[in-house]
Amino acid sequence: MSYDPEKEHLTIPDAEQLVTAKAQNIFDQNLEKKTNLKFSTGKRLRARIRVLEAEVAEFQSSESARLYGLTSEVERAVAKAISEENGHRLYRLIKPLHPADFADLIERHSYTERRLLVTIVGKNFDPEILAELDEAVREEIIPYLSNEVLSSSLASLPTDDTIGVFGGLGEEEQERLLSSISEDGRILVEEGLAYEEDTAGRLMQREVVSVPRNWTVGQTVDFLRISSELPVDFYDIFILDRDRSPLGKLSLSNLLRTKRPVLVEDIMERKFHRVLVHMDQEDVAMLFRKYGLVSAPVVDEKEKLVGMITVDDVVDVIDEEAEEDLMRLGGVVEDDLHGSLVSTTRLRFSWLAINLMTAILASVVIGAFGATIEKMVALAVLMPLVASMGGNAGTQSLTVAVRALAMRELTTTNASKFVIKETAVGFFNGVVFACIAGIVSWLWFGDLQIAAVLATAMIINLIIAGLFGALIPIGLKRLNFDPAIGSSVFVTTVTDVVGFLSFLGLAAYFLI
Amino acid sequence: MSYDPEKEHLTIPDAEQLVTAKAQNIFDQNLEKKTNLKFSTGKRLRARIRVLEAEVAEFQSSESARLYGLTSEVERAVAKAISEENGHRLYRLIKPLHPADFADLIERHSYTERRLLVTIVGKNFDPEILAELDEAVREEIIPYLSNEVLSSSLASLPTDDTIGVFGGLGEEEQERLLSSISEDGRILVEEGLAYEEDTAGRLMQREVVSVPRNWTVGQTVDFLRISSELPVDFYDIFILDRDRSPLGKLSLSNLLRTKRPVLVEDIMERKFHRVLVHMDQEDVAMLFRKYGLVSAPVVDEKEKLVGMITVDDVVDVIDEEAEEDLMRLGGVVEDDLHGSLVSTTRLRFSWLAINLMTAILASVVIGAFGATIEKMVALAVLMPLVASMGGNAGTQSLTVAVRALAMRELTTTNASKFVIKETAVGFFNGVVFACIAGIVSWLWFGDLQIAAVLATAMIINLIIAGLFGALIPIGLKRLNFDPAIGSSVFVTTVTDVVGFLSFLGLAAYFLI
Repeated sequence: MSYDPEKEHLTIPDAEQLVTAKAQNIFDQNLEKKTNLKFSTGKRLRARIRVLEAEVAEFQSSESARLYGLTSEVERAVAKAISEENGHRLYRLIKPLHPADFADLIERHSYTERRLLVTIVGKNFDPEILAELDEAVREEIIPYLSNEVLSSSLASLPTDDTIGVFGGLGEEEQERLLSSISEDGRILVEEGLAYEEDTAGRLMQREVVSVPRNWTVGQTVDFLRISSELPVDFYDIFILDRDRSPLGKLSLSNLLRTKRPVLVEDIMERKFHRVLVHMDQEDVAMLFRKYGLVSAPVVDEKEKLVGMITVDDVVDVIDEEAEEDLMRLGGVVEDDLHGSLVSTTRLRFSWLAINLMTAILASVVIGAFGATIEKMVALAVLMPLVASMGGNAGTQSLTVAVRALAMRELTTTNASKFVIKETAVGFFNGVVFACIAGIVSWLWFGDLQIAAVLATAMIINLIIAGLFGALIPIGLKRLNFDPAIGSSVFVTTVTDVVGFLSFLGLAAYFLI
Repeated sequence: MSYDPEKEHLTIPDAEQLVTAKAQNIFDQNLEKKTNLKFSTGKRLRARIRVLEAEVAEFQSSESARLYGLTSEVERAVAKAISEENGHRLYRLIKPLHPADFADLIERHSYTERRLLVTIVGKNFDPEILAELDEAVREEIIPYLSNEVLSSSLASLPTDDTIGVFGGLGEEEQERLLSSISEDGRILVEEGLAYEEDTAGRLMQREVVSVPRNWTVGQTVDFLRISSELPVDFYDIFILDRDRSPLGKLSLSNLLRTKRPVLVEDIMERKFHRVLVHMDQEDVAMLFRKYGLVSAPVVDEKEKLVGMITVDDVVDVIDEEAEEDLMRLGGVVEDDLHGSLVSTTRLRFSWLAINLMTAILASVVIGAFGATIEKMVALAVLMPLVASMGGNAGTQSLTVAVRALAMRELTTTNASKFVIKETAVGFFNGVVFACIAGIVSWLWFGDLQIAAVLATAMIINLIIAGLFGALIPIGLKRLNFDPAIGSSVFVTTVTDVVGFLSFLGLAAYFLI
């Protein structure tokens, strides 16, 4: 996904002059409005100079933004330019931004400002911005783009990015965009969209470099120099047999260090990692991360080469998967940072509803011991201690389990070892916290019996927490559910119920 | 991190024959022991054939493991070979594994088996395995390796991997290893270790390819062909001025598509992303992920080129950082999957101790309303509902906030917008769940007043959950603390206290 900073210089100047002239007008009006004065020419000139100096400073900081990202100075300057409706300055600030930074800038602003940011760039809108945007935001801004901008945008993106952009759209928008691109492009996009979401087919780009096995290094190098249809970035060349099935992989660094007469077949890597087109993107990410790949060939069922996946796309997948696990463990169905208030409220609701049911279950357990609590109100005071410690210990175990399952570090080989270890950890920490909590409650209520019951319940619940904190994610995974989704609700239900039941039950039996 | 499958064929045969001869002996003894028979030659031959067939099948599946990772068939076969003490078969199974897979295999086994796995490979131990291993496990197995294996291992790794291996060791082991490597290597390693942990300096490799600005494409290509000191893998060439300061970056794909007489200066990317040697690795990861980089030059304070960071190392950092956030949110100080029982128990303890204190705080709040609860035991039954819903809603908000802060998506520009939105989400869901919980408690206890108090407390606590769930991570970040560490304990303390206080307080005021 390289970014060619020279490219935009070809198209911008005239647009810039146009914006400048318009903006200058606004600028002069603003200045006069603010100071409430009609300036004499001298004053006006000096004011202009000061403003121009400030602009030069801003421009320099936005130049550094190109290298080191969207700095907070640039962000502040953009916010100021928006609030002052200074189109000229805004354009000057935005222009040097990398597409990824511009996408960030759009995401961080709200509805009307987003629209302003997109329209002010007009036909100089870089297609890569679309690929970088969050899905929800992308769908929001596409209507602001003209068909002309859209079709030229999509034509210049590699297939994986184009398909990524399409994948996030509603059907109507998909139709509109499809009609705006070329016949060839349309076929590729439709083929890409035919693959299931989150598979290698969706992730790959169709543009690859491949050569036959009987070519020499020299032939290959010459071919690369004259070919006009190379992908923008590539790191490996694939060597194919007659059926277009990849026989080997040759890194560019290896190609470059080899003498011209050598056959590519003699220097290619024969044991390389293929990606099947229907492979889950999580498995693809696993391959890349484990073997340190930068690109991999994608093959269909007949082992024919159909595309290539590059590491930058995999990095996105790794981020996505990590985010998904984190969100799901935190009870968030979907990252909703950029979502609207309504959709966020709705997405959070379902998790809270499940939680309400499990909390009611815990309340039912407490309710069963109503008479006991009535006689000894200290029980009501202390009971959350047991449940809360169990919940936290269980969350610790399940967090380690969920991550280890996602990273394929927890397998059939070491699963039972892990469960035993977690249970033992629960037991040992249970003993320690039983002592601490017991002493605290003894000092507080001066009742050794309550202290003993509290301590016993604590040990029981922490053992249960370790056991189920390890067992539940492993069990969910084995039943082909995502362990990140259900684990925490199941585990805390268990620790709540066991916590209240053991503490109140023991109290009812021994103390009343 | 390339893996050269051909390399090992040069060294293995003699070792293999040795192991085979030894193992065959064990094998024959085993078979005879198991069947309790002295075989006739015919029987023995047929038995041998069956075993060999099984071995061929195993070998094939371990061949596929080389392409698609450690399959469960291979894992099972390895476990069987270990339990049968069949060294020959074990060696045959391990031999074709990729170093990353072998590292996984070591990690998944326990103490004595790890030792067996490492010693059976003996001097054919691939240095890359060391780089792939988890720190705790690496430190465990290094004593099993001879000085000879270690020094040749470390000499063949790129500097970043060598330094990575060193970084995880105790001082004594560091000394032993340092004395086993060459003078030049030692200087590089010591320089590397001088950089702070988790900075670009630790992450970079010293091996880079750089050319002066006045070279042509032809000169560069010829240089690459004859140079003997190229890094194993590289994707970009850096163009330097006379002070060794990078002027531009040239991707190999761009080099290859350009004609020989063109100056590298004319095709290099001038606006490229530099990494400062003291940059935090998290910022490095951000640069790579955002701009889709595969490699980046590392410069010192004087802008001189000192090294290069490649994407495979950044992928590891991304994994690490994601894991760290996930673990910390789950109350796990450090990923302890491979840790011992004692160290895991100790690492989990601190978090649980903090949790105990906040739970006691919540108990104190309940204790203040002891008299109220005594009069109306329904309060004790319902109070966990309010606290639990608040805790979950707060966790949702803080999870989104922690992730967004880590990904730099939540900045000063949109922080206040985010806090307002989260509070509003809390309010809306608060209203919905107030109705549900109110109705449930009304049906349960037939008391409209309790239902009203419960509903009001629910709304209050969910607003507080949204507000503090957003505010606390942002505040921690602004005070330069890691929001992933403290957020959940602070937020749940707030929701527990506010939950109990609002529910019991309102009840005491209105109902008693």
